[in-house]
Amino acid sequence: MSMNKITSITHNTPDMGFSALRVAYQTGNATPAGVMADIRERAKSYGDYNIWIHLLTEEEQAVWLEALKGKDIDSHPLWGIPFAIKDNIDLAGIPTTAGCEAFAYTPEVSSQVVQQLIDAGAVPVGKTNLDQFATGLNGTRSPIGACHNAFNYDYISGGSSSGSAVAVALGLASFSLGTDTAGSGRIPACFNNLVGVKPSIGLLSATGLVPACRSLDCMTIFAYNTDDANVALAAAEGFDQRDGYSRRNPFANQARHYGLRKGPLTVGVIPAHQLKFFGDEGYQKAYWHTLELLKEQGFVFQEIDYAPFDEIAQLLYEGPWVSERYVATQPLIDEHPEAIFPVVREIIAPGGKPPATALFKAQYRIQDLKQICLAQMTQLDCLLTPTAGRHFTIAEMLAEPIKRNSELGYYTNFMNLIDLAAIAVPTVMTEHNMPFGVTLVGPTFSDRMLMSIANRIQQALPLPKGKLETMAAPANVTPVGNLNTIDVMVCGAHLQGQPLNWQLTERGATLKAKTTTAPVYRMYALAGGPPFRPGLILDTGTGGDAIEVEIWSMPTDNFGSFVAGIPAPLGIGKIQLADGSQVTGFICEPYGIEGAQEITRFKGWRAYLASLNNA
Amino acid sequence: MSMNKITSITHNTPDMGFSALRVAYQTGNATPAGVMADIRERAKSYGDYNIWIHLLTEEEQAVWLEALKGKDIDSHPLWGIPFAIKDNIDLAGIPTTAGCEAFAYTPEVSSQVVQQLIDAGAVPVGKTNLDQFATGLNGTRSPIGACHNAFNYDYISGGSSSGSAVAVALGLASFSLGTDTAGSGRIPACFNNLVGVKPSIGLLSATGLVPACRSLDCMTIFAYNTDDANVALAAAEGFDQRDGYSRRNPFANQARHYGLRKGPLTVGVIPAHQLKFFGDEGYQKAYWHTLELLKEQGFVFQEIDYAPFDEIAQLLYEGPWVSERYVATQPLIDEHPEAIFPVVREIIAPGGKPPATALFKAQYRIQDLKQICLAQMTQLDCLLTPTAGRHFTIAEMLAEPIKRNSELGYYTNFMNLIDLAAIAVPTVMTEHNMPFGVTLVGPTFSDRMLMSIANRIQQALPLPKGKLETMAAPANVTPVGNLNTIDVMVCGAHLQGQPLNWQLTERGATLKAKTTTAPVYRMYALAGGPPFRPGLILDTGTGGDAIEVEIWSMPTDNFGSFVAGIPAPLGIGKIQLADGSQVTGFICEPYGIEGAQEITRFKGWRAYLASLNNA
Repeated sequence: MSMNKITSITHNTPDMGFSALRVAYQTGNATPAGVMADIRERAKSYGDYNIWIHLLTEEEQAVWLEALKGKDIDSHPLWGIPFAIKDNIDLAGIPTTAGCEAFAYTPEVSSQVVQQLIDAGAVPVGKTNLDQFATGLNGTRSPIGACHNAFNYDYISGGSSSGSAVAVALGLASFSLGTDTAGSGRIPACFNNLVGVKPSIGLLSATGLVPACRSLDCMTIFAYNTDDANVALAAAEGFDQRDGYSRRNPFANQARHYGLRKGPLTVGVIPAHQLKFFGDEGYQKAYWHTLELLKEQGFVFQEIDYAPFDEIAQLLYEGPWVSERYVATQPLIDEHPEAIFPVVREIIAPGGKPPATALFKAQYRIQDLKQICLAQMTQLDCLLTPTAGRHFTIAEMLAEPIKRNSELGYYTNFMNLIDLAAIAVPTVMTEHNMPFGVTLVGPTFSDRMLMSIANRIQQALPLPKGKLETMAAPANVTPVGNLNTIDVMVCGAHLQGQPLNWQLTERGATLKAKTTTAPVYRMYALAGGPPFRPGLILDTGTGGDAIEVEIWSMPTDNFGSFVAGIPAPLGIGKIQLADGSQVTGFICEPYGIEGAQEITRFKGWRAYLASLNNA
Repeated sequence: MSMNKITSITHNTPDMGFSALRVAYQTGNATPAGVMADIRERAKSYGDYNIWIHLLTEEEQAVWLEALKGKDIDSHPLWGIPFAIKDNIDLAGIPTTAGCEAFAYTPEVSSQVVQQLIDAGAVPVGKTNLDQFATGLNGTRSPIGACHNAFNYDYISGGSSSGSAVAVALGLASFSLGTDTAGSGRIPACFNNLVGVKPSIGLLSATGLVPACRSLDCMTIFAYNTDDANVALAAAEGFDQRDGYSRRNPFANQARHYGLRKGPLTVGVIPAHQLKFFGDEGYQKAYWHTLELLKEQGFVFQEIDYAPFDEIAQLLYEGPWVSERYVATQPLIDEHPEAIFPVVREIIAPGGKPPATALFKAQYRIQDLKQICLAQMTQLDCLLTPTAGRHFTIAEMLAEPIKRNSELGYYTNFMNLIDLAAIAVPTVMTEHNMPFGVTLVGPTFSDRMLMSIANRIQQALPLPKGKLETMAAPANVTPVGNLNTIDVMVCGAHLQGQPLNWQLTERGATLKAKTTTAPVYRMYALAGGPPFRPGLILDTGTGGDAIEVEIWSMPTDNFGSFVAGIPAPLGIGKIQLADGSQVTGFICEPYGIEGAQEITRFKGWRAYLASLNNA
C-alpha cells in the first residue's frame, strides 16, 4: 500500500445527510437500493483506505432492503438511511472480528442497538476497520492495514473507530456506529470533520458489543451534524436489562429532544499552561481561533484546573484498567497470544498481572478525583477541550505507536472513568485545510444538553458535511429552548428580594428576565398573610394594565413540588406577557378577589409595597 | 467473663426517646449533664456486656456539654440527645481503634457525620465495641471480649456495630452510629429490638470512617423508632466532596421528610423454599407471624426469586471484595499480621491474592445480577426479608465463627453490592421473648420511602423501645402522605377513560380515589376543543354543587411538566373536597367562563358528556 498517495480523488458524491436522502426518497428521486448501489460503486475508489473489514454485497444487503418494504417512511425516521458498523459490534449473519481473525465469530442476532436502528429503517452498509480490540486511538493497529484519513491519505484516520468515521466523512454511509472507551468515538470525529456523540455509559445498550473495558465502553455515533446524530441516537438508545451497565435515562421526559442553546454560556476551558499540542501548530492555532469565534457568539470562558482530569486520564492505560482488556481477550491472550496484533498484545498482555488490591486503590483514587472534577463543573454549562492535541501522519504514528497514542488521549482518556457525557464537534479547518474540532463535556445524562450547545456551534461555524460539498449546519433549526427547565412568572412574594423568593432559589431556579405582563391584568392585594400576596386577574376590557413581573427559570423536576405548595386562591396557569408570548405563572381563582383591594394602579407588587411603607 | 450470667438486671431506666428528653429539658425536669451522669451511672451495671471501648469520662464529655450553652433547643433538633459512636468512626480527641490497639490513632477532628450531629446539639457518650475492622456480623470478634445481647446475656449482640446497638437498647444512648458493609447496621438492630437505618451509599459522608470495604461502606443509625431515626438522619446526611463515594440525594426536596405510608402496599417476599432459618424455629415462627400481622394491615405480598440476590451475597466474602478489607488494613496486615484478631486475620489475609482480572469479572457479574434484581423490584413498593435467619448464642457463634457469620449474612450481604437502601425494623418478639424484625429494601435513595413503610409497621405492631419500658411507636404521627407523589384532582378530559388521561398515566400517576368536591363549585363547559374541557369556579353562595372528580397520585418529579402543559384559562390550584380536605387540582381563571355554558347541574363531566351523546 502506498503511503504517498495523493488524496485529491474527487467524486460526484451526493448529499448523504438524512434530510436530503429522505427528500429524495419521498419525491421519488432516489431509492434505497439505488443509494446502496452507488455507495458500493464509490467505495471501490477507496479500496486502499482500508475502511471496511466487510462491505456488504448486494446479496447480503438484500434482506435489509427487503425489510424496508413493510415500513412507511413517515413513521420510520431512518428509513433507507445507510449506516456503517464498527466491526466489534454484531450484525446478524456477518462475522464480528474486532480486527482479529482468530477471535472472529458470526453472530446469529444483531446487537441490540443495530437492531433498533434497523427497526427504525436504517440499512447496514458494512463492518468497518478498527484498532484491534478497540485498543488504540489512531487507526493503524489493524492486521488489514492502517485506515487512512478522509482529508489526507498520509494522515491517520484516528481510532479505534477508524473505518466508521472515514466511511461517513467520504459519504459511504450517512452515519455510523463506533465505540468509545478512551476516546475512540471522538478522536476520529475530529480528524474527519464529523460530529462524534459519546453518550453517557449505559444510554445505549452494549449487548452484542465486543468489550474493550466493559465497565467503561459505550457505543457512539458519527454523523454530519447534531440533527442527524440526534435522530440516530433517539433510535439507538434505551434501557436493556441484558446489559449489566445499561441505565435508564432519568431525564426520560426530555430524552429525545434537543434544541439550540441560546444566550450566554459559561464554558470551562483548560488554562494555556495545561494545554498540549505536541508540536502541532496548526491545531494550536485552530484551537485559539475556535475560542475567539465562540467568544463572538456569546460564549464566556472560565479556566478550570485540568490536573485532576489528567491524573484520571493517565490511570486508564497505566493503571489496572488494562486488566479489563485482558479479560476481554481471554482465552485468546492466554492460549494464542501470537494471534494478536503486536502493539495491541504489548498493551494488553501485562493486564493479567495487577492484583485486585491495586484495582481497588485505583478505583478509590478515581472516585476522589471525580469529586474534584465535578466540583469544578457545577457552575459551568459544560467543559470544552480540543478533541485532540495533534493530528499525526501515519508514518509518525507507526514510529512511536505507544507514545503517540498516549498523546492522542490527553484530552479524552478521563471521560468514561468518571462517567461523563461528551460530544466532539468540528469547529474550523486548520491552515493546512485539515479538520479540527473541540469536545464538549458534561455530567452523566447531559447528552442532549451538550447536543444543544454543539448545534449552536455548528450553526455559528459553518463547515461542510465530512468531506462532502454540502454544508453540515441544518437548514431548519429546531426552535426549542432547554426543555429541562420551565419558565415561571412571579409577581408578588416570590419576586427577587421578597419573602418567598427562596422557594425559587432553593429549587435551583435562576432569574431569567424582568418584564411586564400584557396590559390586560388587574392586580389585587389578597386577604391573609404574612406573607402578603397579590392576585392577577385577566381583564380584556379597559380595566387592565401591564404589571411588573419576573420570569424565573426552574428545573422541571423541581416545579411539581413548587406548585403543590401554592395555597388557594392562587394557582399556576398561563400568563400573557408584554411581548405577546405566554408563560407559565401565577393565576388567581375568582373568589379570591372578592372584597380584596384592587392595586392595579401601582403596576407592580413592589410599588404597592413601597406605597404602604410610605403611608 | 461469665457466659452464664443472668440478664434480668432491671433498672429504673427513663424514656430515652428524643421527644421524652426534649420535653424533660424544655420543662426543666432534666438537664443534659444530669442525663449524661445518669448514663454513666447505669453503664456501670453493664460493665461485663463489653459495650464500650471508650466510655467518655465526665471531663471528656464536658466540652460537648459546654458547647450546648450557645445553642437553643428549638433550633437544634438533637439538643442534649446522647449518642454512641462505633469505634471505627472518629470523635475528636478520643482514640479510634476499629477494635485493634495496634491500628489505633487519635483523630484531631471528628468525622463529618459526628460533627454534624454535634452541631445539631447531640452529645457523644462514648466509642462502642465492634467486630474488629467491622469484619463480622456477630459481635464476638473483639479483643476486649464479645458484646452481649441486651435481651439475653448468653446471646450474641449481632455486629459488627455491636456496642452501638446494645447501648441504645439498654438506654445508655438515645441513638447511635454504626456502619454497614455486609449487614452490620441491620443485624444488631434485629437482635436488640431497634430500628436500623442503612442509608444509600454516599448519603452520609464517610470522611472520618475507617473503611472495611470502602466502595461498599456506609454509616448507619440505630434508634428506637423511625421518628428519632429520621431526625438523626436529617442531621447526619449531606454531600461531602472529600468523600469519593459521597453523592447528592436527587430527591433533595423530599430529603428530610417522611410520613406514614398508607393504602395497599405490594411488597416482595422470598418464597418459602428459599427462606433459611438455620434451625431457629422461634425466628421462623416470628417471620410468618409478622407476615400475617402485616397482611391484616393491608400489605400485599408477592414472591420474588431470591436466587440472584443470594448469588450476589455470596460474592461479598467469597469473591475479591475481601481485597478491599486487605487494603483497609494495610500496612498492618503486611507488617504485623499477628496484631489482628485471629478470625478477622483469617478472613482478611487471603485478600492480597486475587488478581484485578478476577475483580473485574466479579464486578461484571454483579452488574448483570443487579439488573435481574432491580427488574424484580420495579413493580413493588419494597422488598421485605427477615433481617436475620437465626439468633445464635455466643457459644454457638464461637464454635463455628465463619460458618455462623455467613449464615447471619444470608439476607444482608447483597445489599451494598447492588447499591440498595434498607431499614431494619422490629416486628414481634419470639416465643422466647427475644426480638425479631424484618428489613425493608428499596432502590438507591429510597431511604425516606422505606422509612415511611417502617413507620407504618411500628404503628401497627407496637413494641417497646429497645429493652426499655416505654413504647417505640411515636405518640404523634407525622400527618403527611408520601411526599414523593402529589395528589392531583382532575374533573374533565383527564378523568379515567377521557382523552387526556394518558398525560397522567405516562407520568406514572395512579388513580387513588373517586370522590366529589365540596358542594361549593360551579362547573362550566369551556370554549374550544377538542379536547373539550370543563372549568370549576368556587362559589360559596348558593350556586355551587358537589362535582364528580378523581384524585390521581403522581410522582412529584413529573408534576412540573404536567402543569407546564396546561393551557389557559385552566391552571393548577387548590380544590376543596367533600370530606373537607383540600387537594391540588384544576382551577380556572375567571375570564375563561365568560360566555361559557354552566353545566353544574350535571354534577360531573361524564354526566354532561353523556347528555350530549343522548341529545
